[in-house]
Amino acid sequence: MKIHILTLFPEMFDVLNHSILGRAQKEGILNIECVNIRDYTNNKHKKVDDYPYGGGAGMVMMPQPIVDCIKDVKKVNNGKVVFLGPRGKTFNQEMAKDLSKEKEIIFLCGHYEGIDERIYDYIDMEVSLGDFVLTGGEMACIPIVDSISRMIPNVLSCDESFMDESFYDGLLEYPQYTRPFEFEEKKVPEILISGHHENIRKYRRLQSLLITKKQRNDLYRNIELTKEDKKMLENHYKTKK
Amino acid sequence: MKIHILTLFPEMFDVLNHSILGRAQKEGILNIECVNIRDYTNNKHKKVDDYPYGGGAGMVMMPQPIVDCIKDVKKVNNGKVVFLGPRGKTFNQEMAKDLSKEKEIIFLCGHYEGIDERIYDYIDMEVSLGDFVLTGGEMACIPIVDSISRMIPNVLSCDESFMDESFYDGLLEYPQYTRPFEFEEKKVPEILISGHHENIRKYRRLQSLLITKKQRNDLYRNIELTKEDKKMLENHYKTKK
Repeated sequence: MKIHILTLFPEMFDVLNHSILGRAQKEGILNIECVNIRDYTNNKHKKVDDYPYGGGAGMVMMPQPIVDCIKDVKKVNNGKVVFLGPRGKTFNQEMAKDLSKEKEIIFLCGHYEGIDERIYDYIDMEVSLGDFVLTGGEMACIPIVDSISRMIPNVLSCDESFMDESFYDGLLEYPQYTRPFEFEEKKVPEILISGHHENIRKYRRLQSLLITKKQRNDLYRNIELTKEDKKMLENHYKTKK
Repeated sequence: MKIHILTLFPEMFDVLNHSILGRAQKEGILNIECVNIRDYTNNKHKKVDDYPYGGGAGMVMMPQPIVDCIKDVKKVNNGKVVFLGPRGKTFNQEMAKDLSKEKEIIFLCGHYEGIDERIYDYIDMEVSLGDFVLTGGEMACIPIVDSISRMIPNVLSCDESFMDESFYDGLLEYPQYTRPFEFEEKKVPEILISGHHENIRKYRRLQSLLITKKQRNDLYRNIELTKEDKKMLENHYKTKK
């Protein structure tokens, strides 16, 4: 996938050169290029924002530099223009999956104060990271690019991608344990060293159900419980009494 | 505020040295320090993770390095230990406000595959960025630290903080316009150059209401409409017919 990131702070995206995304770029599966919007301004003082018409605090990004930047990038990247902005749909795993199927994407990061409304004519999609205020689109773009990239075939090793599958069946993770067997007098649950795969699977499934119910009842309510789930939960609550 | 970030990738957090957060650090309002968890492992090969008990894909972060790291940081930072993990409550503006009142915070970033369950005994709070999978807690920590830091007094200039207030009254932003008045044959709405502040305020309020209703009906339903709002909306729909 070819990703262009249009931003006033290209140096912020160095963070995408580490870990899994760094490897994917070295392997040529992923190609992330940052473009400095400021390079496109016609203003002799290199200005990219100005006061809002009608008054009010903050600065608004001017249409000319951004639109010229988009037009120029479109010569080599024909992807959707995705604006990281507060009006957008909240980003989620489904969106990550959908966007990971694109061959090319152009991300536009704006100031939090806003961009000139006329720039929206050049935007295909607006995405929000969540219901909180950020300094700029950059802060949303970083985790969103991470999340999308993980879904591109071959970015993750087999081992890693398996985790994603099991992770996102709508349940939260079951508790994980690793070495040492005993840590500060707390031992790993016996069942995990029993070698009995079927019992371990059931134990983990039950733990996932219980944790999801406790922590995220909104997710839990959307889960279709299997017969086995119901039986396990019933037994669990019976023995608890 | 004093923030410690416990991570395997301290170099990723260079992104927090730019823009508003960079300024706040220079001014001494904010103090962000990254601590490499790997420096705390007792393992002679500097290992920090191991295979999960009970089998399964991926690696799990071992309790010893993380717990020793937390204990050591606690000598100088007595803040809450906030783990960036998938089981946590979804981060939002309210949480940002609450956490911005803390004097000290310790963020713990884990691998996405998980941390040993026994580490939870040292965690005060788990926060999730949203319903999507990330490579690691780092990707969630970056925007969360940004969002919290903006709420600390004096991190934003007067102008900037004013924006936040108006932004987060539960409505999405109204359209913003700046120079030039005409761009690609599209002009700024006449009302914004009228100089009539009260009409501009009403126009913007109506636009915010309409945009929120269209884009985020979930937010719109929680808004208590004023008498003026109702009248404006009524007029708007009447003239549209």
